Formats: sequence, structure tokens, C-alpha cells
Amino acid sequence: MSQRVPGDDTGLIHPTVIQPSDHAPWRQDRMGKATLFQSPRMLVGLNAFEPGQLHALHAHAGMDKLYQVIEGEGALLLEGREAPMKVGDLVVAPEGVPHGIRNTSSARLLVLVILAPAP
Amino acid sequence: MSQRVPGDDTGLIHPTVIQPSDHAPWRQDRMGKATLFQSPRMLVGLNAFEPGQLHALHAHAGMDKLYQVIEGEGALLLEGREAPMKVGDLVVAPEGVPHGIRNTSSARLLVLVILAPAP
Repeated sequence: MSQRVPGDDTGLIHPTVIQPSDHAPWRQDRMGKATLFQSPRMLVGLNAFEPGQLHALHAHAGMDKLYQVIEGEGALLLEGREAPMKVGDLVVAPEGVPHGIRNTSSARLLVLVILAPAP
Repeated sequence: MSQRVPGDDTGLIHPTVIQPSDHAPWRQDRMGKATLFQSPRMLVGLNAFEPGQLHALHAHAGMDKLYQVIEGEGALLLEGREAPMKVGDLVVAPEGVPHGIRNTSSARLLVLVILAPAP
């Protein structure tokens, strides 16, 4: 059994094993976003940050968000503080908790993003 | 704002940046499991496979599951086929799709597991 997922902009049939970095949505003007999987229950995507790019502090009502660093390093933005994140690091911002990401490095930063439920 | 999560067996206050491998629940008798975060919306955990250990084919009604390989390599089990998975590889088994994991290697295999919604 496999499913093509409407909100998925890769055209993948799930389950398909992928290497996330193959789908990295780099762009020069702002943070790039890709959706790897989307159902009512879960959105799996990528946020791609060139040096200096950021996703400003924001929160999601009723949705938990997980970030995991796939490539590079940067800073997790929280209210009143920042925390460094490097390859493999993972963090969960429970619903309502403001969070963001800034690429504080001179190299690319690729982050896996999971929202549950999906927006 | 931060939250201690009842189903979380690490005692973490979220959001806290962690390296998943620091919480790997290795055990000799069978696949080890740890929960890093749990809310009604999402369970974030680890499955730890010593060589030869497996999580047999199973499915979750109404829950999507994501696997990502943190360390090692193995095989994703699907109905009637297997797919190799190596470090960084990611797969989503949408709700109702049978899936499992086998450590086919001679080294440890650590897998990030996300279920949405949580069981």
C-alpha cells in the first residue's frame, strides 16, 4: 500500500525512503521551504537557510513543532534567548511556545521541520 | 515559556535542544524505546536496535509515522519488500501502512520515531 499525498510538493509516493538534503529548497531572497509529506495529522518539511537568513520568532496555536538540524549550524530563537544548534540536534517547541531559527554561520543550514497536526 | 511533558521519560523541559544519541535506549534482550516528547498531538521517540534486533511489521490506525536514521544502517520493512536505510534517510508510513525496521548490519542502529497524533 502506498499513498500520494496532496500537500506534498515532491510528488513522492509514500512510503518512499528519501535523503532530505536531496530536496533542499535553497533560495537567495529568503528562507526556502519544501513539503515532503502532508496529511491532516502531520506536516514534514524542510527549511533551508542561506547564511544570514532567518525565520523570525513565531508560535503555532494547537500545533507542536519539531526542528532537527540536517546540515550546518545556527541558532534556535526563543523568547529572550537563543540556543546554538548543530548537525543532529533536535528540539520540540510545544504548541504556543514562540520559536524561530537564524543561520548565524557562514555556511548553509538545512532543518527538518515537523508540525503536528498539520496547519 | 517551557513545558515539562508527562509522557516524556527524559525529564526534559521543552523546548530544550538535545542530541538524540545522548538518550539512546540500548538493551540486549530486544529493541530499546525512549520517549523524548509526548503530547496528544505528537510522540517523539527513539528506537535502538542492536545487531539483529527488529521491530516487526505493524500498522497504526489513524496515526502517521516518520522514521529517520540517526546512527547506523538497516532495512525498512514493508509489505512484501524491504528498503535499505542509512544515516540521514527518512521515511513516512502514512496511517494504516504496515512498516517495521530490522538491523541488518553488524553495528548499532538508532532511529528517530515520530507518531502523529500520539498513541
